[in-house]
Amino acid sequence: IAKEVAKLLEMKAQLGGDETKHKFVLKTPKGTRDYSPKQMAIRERVFDTIIACFKRHGAEVIDTPVFELKETLTGKYGEDSKLIYDLKDQGGELLSLRYDLTVPFARYLAMNKITNIKRYHIAKVYRRDNPAMTRGRYREFYQCDFDIAGQFDPMIPDAECLKIVHEILSDLQLGDFLIKVNDRRILDGMFAVCGVPDSKFRTICSSVDKLDKMPWEEVRSEMVGEKGLSPEAADHIGEYVQLHGGLDLVERLLQDPRLSQNKLAKEGLGDLKLLFEYLALFGIAGEISFDLSLARGLDYYTGVIFEAVLLQPENDHVEEPVGVGSVAGGGRYDGLVGMFDPKGRKVPCVGVSIGIERIFSILEQRVEASQEKIRTTETQVLVASAQKKLLEERLKLVSELWDAGIKAEVLYKKNPKLLNQLQYCEDTGIPLVAIVGEQELKDGVIKLRDVATREEVNIRRETLVEEIRMRTSRP
Amino acid sequence: IAKEVAKLLEMKAQLGGDETKHKFVLKTPKGTRDYSPKQMAIRERVFDTIIACFKRHGAEVIDTPVFELKETLTGKYGEDSKLIYDLKDQGGELLSLRYDLTVPFARYLAMNKITNIKRYHIAKVYRRDNPAMTRGRYREFYQCDFDIAGQFDPMIPDAECLKIVHEILSDLQLGDFLIKVNDRRILDGMFAVCGVPDSKFRTICSSVDKLDKMPWEEVRSEMVGEKGLSPEAADHIGEYVQLHGGLDLVERLLQDPRLSQNKLAKEGLGDLKLLFEYLALFGIAGEISFDLSLARGLDYYTGVIFEAVLLQPENDHVEEPVGVGSVAGGGRYDGLVGMFDPKGRKVPCVGVSIGIERIFSILEQRVEASQEKIRTTETQVLVASAQKKLLEERLKLVSELWDAGIKAEVLYKKNPKLLNQLQYCEDTGIPLVAIVGEQELKDGVIKLRDVATREEVNIRRETLVEEIRMRTSRP
Repeated sequence: IAKEVAKLLEMKAQLGGDETKHKFVLKTPKGTRDYSPKQMAIRERVFDTIIACFKRHGAEVIDTPVFELKETLTGKYGEDSKLIYDLKDQGGELLSLRYDLTVPFARYLAMNKITNIKRYHIAKVYRRDNPAMTRGRYREFYQCDFDIAGQFDPMIPDAECLKIVHEILSDLQLGDFLIKVNDRRILDGMFAVCGVPDSKFRTICSSVDKLDKMPWEEVRSEMVGEKGLSPEAADHIGEYVQLHGGLDLVERLLQDPRLSQNKLAKEGLGDLKLLFEYLALFGIAGEISFDLSLARGLDYYTGVIFEAVLLQPENDHVEEPVGVGSVAGGGRYDGLVGMFDPKGRKVPCVGVSIGIERIFSILEQRVEASQEKIRTTETQVLVASAQKKLLEERLKLVSELWDAGIKAEVLYKKNPKLLNQLQYCEDTGIPLVAIVGEQELKDGVIKLRDVATREEVNIRRETLVEEIRMRTSRP
Repeated sequence: IAKEVAKLLEMKAQLGGDETKHKFVLKTPKGTRDYSPKQMAIRERVFDTIIACFKRHGAEVIDTPVFELKETLTGKYGEDSKLIYDLKDQGGELLSLRYDLTVPFARYLAMNKITNIKRYHIAKVYRRDNPAMTRGRYREFYQCDFDIAGQFDPMIPDAECLKIVHEILSDLQLGDFLIKVNDRRILDGMFAVCGVPDSKFRTICSSVDKLDKMPWEEVRSEMVGEKGLSPEAADHIGEYVQLHGGLDLVERLLQDPRLSQNKLAKEGLGDLKLLFEYLALFGIAGEISFDLSLARGLDYYTGVIFEAVLLQPENDHVEEPVGVGSVAGGGRYDGLVGMFDPKGRKVPCVGVSIGIERIFSILEQRVEASQEKIRTTETQVLVASAQKKLLEERLKLVSELWDAGIKAEVLYKKNPKLLNQLQYCEDTGIPLVAIVGEQELKDGVIKLRDVATREEVNIRRETLVEEIRMRTSRP
C-alpha cells in the first residue's frame, strides 16, 4: 500500500508540475547562491592568490566526487553529522554529499595506499546548517584545503601549514588577523586534570568550542546544567581557557603543577614549544597566539589545531564585534586514514582549510564601497564598422583575429550603429576598436581606435595583430 | 509506528556503522572517480585550452549551485528525466542535482531578468546513467558550456558557437573530427511531410537520435514495432536521414517538392543556408556536415542543433568503430528561459557544451602510451643540506624563498641524506637544489645545483632569488 501511495503521490506531483508550469518558484535552494560574472571575477582573484601559495609550497592537486558512500562519512563528524546532506535512495548505493574535503582525502589515501603526499583541493562542500548569507555562511560553500600526509619529524609540516595561512591572509590584504593554536592533547590533558570524566571529553570540548561566540558564563552553565559537569571541574576549566600567549605561556604551562603531570598535555606542550621555534624561523611567531579556549568542533583532530580570525579595524562602521570570525582552520589528524584502512594502518596528516566565502563577502563589500570597476571579460578589441552592409567583412576580420589568438568580439547585428559599438566598448572595458570601412578595405588598412583617448590610426591589415598585441600587453 | 520503526532502523544503522568500523567498502560511488595529481595535470591543460578559447570570444563566467529545486528540472529533459539524482527529503525544499548546465543557466537568466549575455560555465553535472568508464562515460562528469543569450540577427551567434567547437577541437590536437549540424525545424518538417502524427514527433525524434549507435534497420523496426509508426512513414524518413552534405544539400532540399512546402522545414533550411555562408567566412564550412540523421535527445532545442565527433585514425589499434563518439554538442533553445519567466517572456539562446571526459580519456591514454613524464608540481628549487643539524638553516632559507615568491620545498626531516634529497628532485622534476652547508653559511653563499647537469656553483645569498628566477623562467 505504501508503495502505491508513493506512486500516486509522485504522479500527483508530476501532474501538479505540468499544471503550474508558469508558477515556478524562481530561486536557488536555501543557503545557496549563483555567482554573477562580477562575483566570479572577484572569486577568481582570490583563488589565484590561494593556488599560487599552495603551488609555491610544492603541492600537487587532486579531485574527488561531490558525493561519497554514506558510510564513508559516518562517525567522522561527531555532533555535526546531522548536517550531512543525503541523496535519495533511488536504488543502488546510499550516498551523501561531502561535508568537508578532509574525509574524502583520507578515503583517497587509504584506497590508493598512499603514505606520502602534499596536495591541495579546492571544491564545494555541503552542510545543512542555518545559513547566514550576509555573513558568508552558506549551505554550499568552497573549501580550499592544503594537507601534508606522511611520517615526518615532528612539527615541520605543522609549521608550514601555519606559514601558508599567514602567507594567504597577507597576500589577500584583508587587514589584521590573528592565528590561534592549541593542541587536542593539551585540551584532553586539561580536562583530565580538571576532573572531567573520560566519557565527557568530547561533549565538554564542544562546549569549549563555543567560547568564540558565547561568554564564559553561558558556556559554564551549559557544561554544568546540560552536560552534568561538576561546578568545580567547570571552574578549573574556566581558569585555563582564559589563558593565551606565545612561547612564554607554553613554557609556563610546562611548569604548571597539574598539567605537567599529565602525559598527554606534556606531549602537546612539548610539540607546541617546537612549533613556536619553527614559526620564529619563518618570521611569524609574533602573529600566532597559543589559546587554550580554541577547541575546533570536528572529532578527527589528534594534535595541533589552529584557526585564523580577521580583526576588525577600529574605525569600521560594521556592526559586528571585533572578531569577524574564522577564515581558516585546521590541525593534525593522525587517526583518520587508519579508520579507512582495512588493517588500520595509520598515515599521520596535518592540514589547513581556507574558508573563502567570508573572504569573498569582505572583498565584494570592499569593491562595492570603492566603486572600483571590475572587468568581467578580457576582450582586447571589438571589430566594428561605420557603414552598413559590412557584416561579412566584420566576420572575416574577427575570425582572422581569433585564429591569431586575439581576444575579439563583434556585435551580432547586421548593421549596428557605430555609436552603439563604441558604447559597448565603454560598458565592458574593451580598450580597442578595429573599424572596417569601404575605403579602408580598398586601401588594405583597418582603422584602429583607442577607446580611452579616442585616437584613430590606420594600420595595414597584415600588421594589425601585432599592433593589437603590442597595445594590449601588460606593461 | 512508521516513525518509530524508522527511528529504530536508523539507530540500528548507526550501531552497525560502529561495529563494522574497519569493514568499510573503500571505493568511490558507482560511475564516479577520483582524479590523481597526474590526471589533474592533464585535466588542467584541457581546461586551460578551453577557457582560453571562451575568453578569446569575449565570454563572461558564472557559477550556479550543484543542486536546484526539483521543480526547476521537471519537464525539461523528456525521457531522460529518470536519470536525475534527487536529494533525500530531510525537511525543507525538495532538491535535485543538476543534470546539465543549460537549465540552471536559463533559470539564472529568468531569475535575474537578464536578456543579453555571453557566458561560459565549467562544472560537474550528474546523471544516473549506466556508466562506461573506460569510454569516458561517468555519472559525475564535467561540462564546459558556452552560450549566447539575446535577441540578435539570425545565425551570427550560432555560427560563432560552431567556430568555437572547431577552435577547441583543433587546439586540443585530438586528430580529425567532424561537426554535424541539423535543425529541429527541419526534423519536424520532415516528420510532417513523411506522415508522422504530431503526437509522435518527439518519440520518433528519439529513435532517429539512436542512428549514431544503431543501424537504420533497427531504428526502423523500433519506429514501426514499438512506436506504432506506419511502415510507409518510416521508409520516407529512412530516405531523408541518409542524406548528408554541405551547402549543396541545403540548396537541394530547398527545392525538394515535399520539404519545401513545409513552413518549418523551409525556415530551418533558410537559416542553415545563412549559417553555411557565415561558416565559409570563418573558414570552416568544409568541416561542417549537414546531417539529417542528427536529432539530439534533449527536449528543449528549437532550431539549429549540432554535434562534434572525433574520427578514428585508420591505423589505430583500438577496437571501437570509426566514430569515437560525441565530444561536443549544442543547439538553439529559444523557449527554455520563457518556461521560467512568470510572464513567459522569451530570451533566445544558443550554446555549445564540450564533453570533456572523453577528451580526458583520450589524452590520458596518449600520455600513457608515449610515456611522457608529466610534472605534478611546479617547484623550482629544493632547499637541501649536505651535513646534519642544518634543519633550522634550511627552514630559514626556504622561508626567505617563499617570501620572495619562489616555489620551494624542503624535506620534512631533521637530518635527511643528500642523496635522498637529490633523488626527490629527480622523482618530482625539481630543476634546482639550493644546498646550505657550514662553510657556505660562513661565506654568505649558497651552493646552487642544476639537477640535470649536476653542475654546482656558489651564489651570494642576496642574489640567490634572482638567479633562481633567471634559471627557471620559461624561454
